[in-house]
Amino acid sequence: MTGTLYGLGIGPGDPELLTLKAHRILVAAPVVAYPQPDTGPSFARSIVSEYFREDRFEYPIVVPMRTERFPAKAVYDAAARDLSAHLDEGRDVAVLCEGDPFFYGSFMYLYERLAQRYPCEVVPGVSSVMAGAAALGRPLAARNDVLTIVPGPLSDEEIAARLTISDAVAIIKIGRHFSRIKRLLEEMNLAGCAGYLERVTLAEERVTPLAEVTTDAPYFSMILIYKGAEDWVASWPVKSGERAHVC
Amino acid sequence: MTGTLYGLGIGPGDPELLTLKAHRILVAAPVVAYPQPDTGPSFARSIVSEYFREDRFEYPIVVPMRTERFPAKAVYDAAARDLSAHLDEGRDVAVLCEGDPFFYGSFMYLYERLAQRYPCEVVPGVSSVMAGAAALGRPLAARNDVLTIVPGPLSDEEIAARLTISDAVAIIKIGRHFSRIKRLLEEMNLAGCAGYLERVTLAEERVTPLAEVTTDAPYFSMILIYKGAEDWVASWPVKSGERAHVC
Repeated sequence: MTGTLYGLGIGPGDPELLTLKAHRILVAAPVVAYPQPDTGPSFARSIVSEYFREDRFEYPIVVPMRTERFPAKAVYDAAARDLSAHLDEGRDVAVLCEGDPFFYGSFMYLYERLAQRYPCEVVPGVSSVMAGAAALGRPLAARNDVLTIVPGPLSDEEIAARLTISDAVAIIKIGRHFSRIKRLLEEMNLAGCAGYLERVTLAEERVTPLAEVTTDAPYFSMILIYKGAEDWVASWPVKSGERAHVC
Repeated sequence: MTGTLYGLGIGPGDPELLTLKAHRILVAAPVVAYPQPDTGPSFARSIVSEYFREDRFEYPIVVPMRTERFPAKAVYDAAARDLSAHLDEGRDVAVLCEGDPFFYGSFMYLYERLAQRYPCEVVPGVSSVMAGAAALGRPLAARNDVLTIVPGPLSDEEIAARLTISDAVAIIKIGRHFSRIKRLLEEMNLAGCAGYLERVTLAEERVTPLAEVTTDAPYFSMILIYKGAEDWVASWPVKSGERAHVC
């Protein structure tokens, strides 16, 4: 009997936003793998660290934070080889995935290498986009709205085309593209209906109208654009009883 | 002290896909409200029924399944009035929301009536779209893909415009629009790269290439379109060790 490969969605950051299922599998898994930058700690591991058992085998997948593709290819080849040794010996392997495993996640690189050879189960998770709408206190999409998810590295022309044709847009993977995207939204008269979110659901969460952001943005940031909602953004944050919108 | 209004995302159907946070709040809440059709049981309540305490107060919000807007308005006005009586007396109210509360959910109708007057917290949940990708066994969006969520009631022209400009598309709220949408996808040569999903993560889940669906679709169904993935859909379902893709 080989082990099972699990892709575990662990949510946007708050450890309580793991699903009961992901929690059950994580606590039982003898081997836990997670992405880790070449400098600094693993965000995925930090989300679930309180659930870690002492006796598990940990396998950090150290992915160099560069734009070239080939170093990452070698990393995933090696990880697939090492993890398949555990699977061959019958040990389940849980791979931690920030947010949801199949929503812009790096789990796909292990999945495409291992899913044909081993039992594999993907446990969906809470996406940071949904958590962002909860933190902003406004539905992301309603009724027959069209919602588009647009990666920030796309060109101005590509982003503008999607903004034009959608009711709501989430721009993700902002990082070093922040200034360019903010300028584009200003040119399109959409900056006034945009919320900026950083490290959503974490203690250091930052949620603010886009217009108030003058610094650079970290990798874990996004912009949610609610077309036609200028009045709402102008009076934002919404004043509820105690302002408990933020999860 | 007034109570807090919680919008609880309870996920796509599998009770284990509740978050730890939604579970904690649900178990503690003295009042639990949920949508219920005018005939038949509440899907939201059925998802979490195993977590229900005996002594809680249940408040079904019976929404007539019709297209007119005004009967629903009266229903939400009455629900807001009744639930505010509990909140005024300091009792927390948990509102069950299938999937995520702010992702095409009906929670917004209570939220817009009550969030200015009471502490309110929205707990994001696992969307059926993410669960659908997990069930199909293929990433919904990767790298710099553009992903668009399109409601089925939109016209052919409106849907076609979004299909043209996206890498991946999730068409939701299919229901009685199924035949028309399937025909549109055939005309656009996209039926071959589309997966059909029904009641995802439930025991009666159905996951199949769109081409094999000849019946009507229920309300809880969706179509995921992976442009350019005809070869993959043709060989679908992916053959993994034991085919354990489905959660």
